[in-house]
Amino acid sequence: MKPTHIEHIGIAVSNLEESIKYYQEVLGLECYAVEEVTDQKVKTAFFMVGQTKIELLEATAEDSPVAKFVDKKGPGIHHLAFAMDDVATALNDAEAKGVRLIDKEPRGGAEGLRIGFLHPKSTGGVLTEFCGKK
Amino acid sequence: MKPTHIEHIGIAVSNLEESIKYYQEVLGLECYAVEEVTDQKVKTAFFMVGQTKIELLEATAEDSPVAKFVDKKGPGIHHLAFAMDDVATALNDAEAKGVRLIDKEPRGGAEGLRIGFLHPKSTGGVLTEFCGKK
Repeated sequence: MKPTHIEHIGIAVSNLEESIKYYQEVLGLECYAVEEVTDQKVKTAFFMVGQTKIELLEATAEDSPVAKFVDKKGPGIHHLAFAMDDVATALNDAEAKGVRLIDKEPRGGAEGLRIGFLHPKSTGGVLTEFCGKK
Repeated sequence: MKPTHIEHIGIAVSNLEESIKYYQEVLGLECYAVEEVTDQKVKTAFFMVGQTKIELLEATAEDSPVAKFVDKKGPGIHHLAFAMDDVATALNDAEAKGVRLIDKEPRGGAEGLRIGFLHPKSTGGVLTEFCGKK
């Protein structure tokens, strides 16, 4: 199963307000949504660039996966999400090809989409997400 | 100046052949070009996903910037490139807004495009490239 486009690029930030300001003032992008995703312990801000969203992620707790990422690597690009027509089938296909999955089944993500993550150990170090409506 | 789309996502890899295989076989993408960029000391491979290219980067020398990145952080997402109508103006605008530039003037990049990099210290840890035809 082939992705249709890059759905979003997740960027871990230390300070959401400062980062929103950078993307708005320097890159001229509009922040169209700020959303807290409680089960991931992050506060997110979204910008559209062509077909692709920039998703800024600020940790809301010390044990958030994003807090651990920032502690280890510093703020920066956190994950890459491919738009897939059918996330469940895409995850199954990847697993059948030997990829280790973080999510065996799609779960709910930001903006009401179905999402599933592939483990970076299987993807050349890139935390990879599949993202779609079903 | 606002980017029109995400031009490409640069991904540092340890082994270009293995990574090409992953993007082809697991993600179903087609590698449409392999190019060596001698002044950056990298070998690159390109895939198209909607409007955006995935650019895999393998270092060809120990003192390549990509080799240093992989030594420090491991393989993974290396930089994010925004498509800009006018790279020179976009670099000047960013500098006027207090951003530290790696390239004060556009230079030649892969695929004959004009490119310029912003310093990650000014962009929340994201090595950011502007990329365009002029």
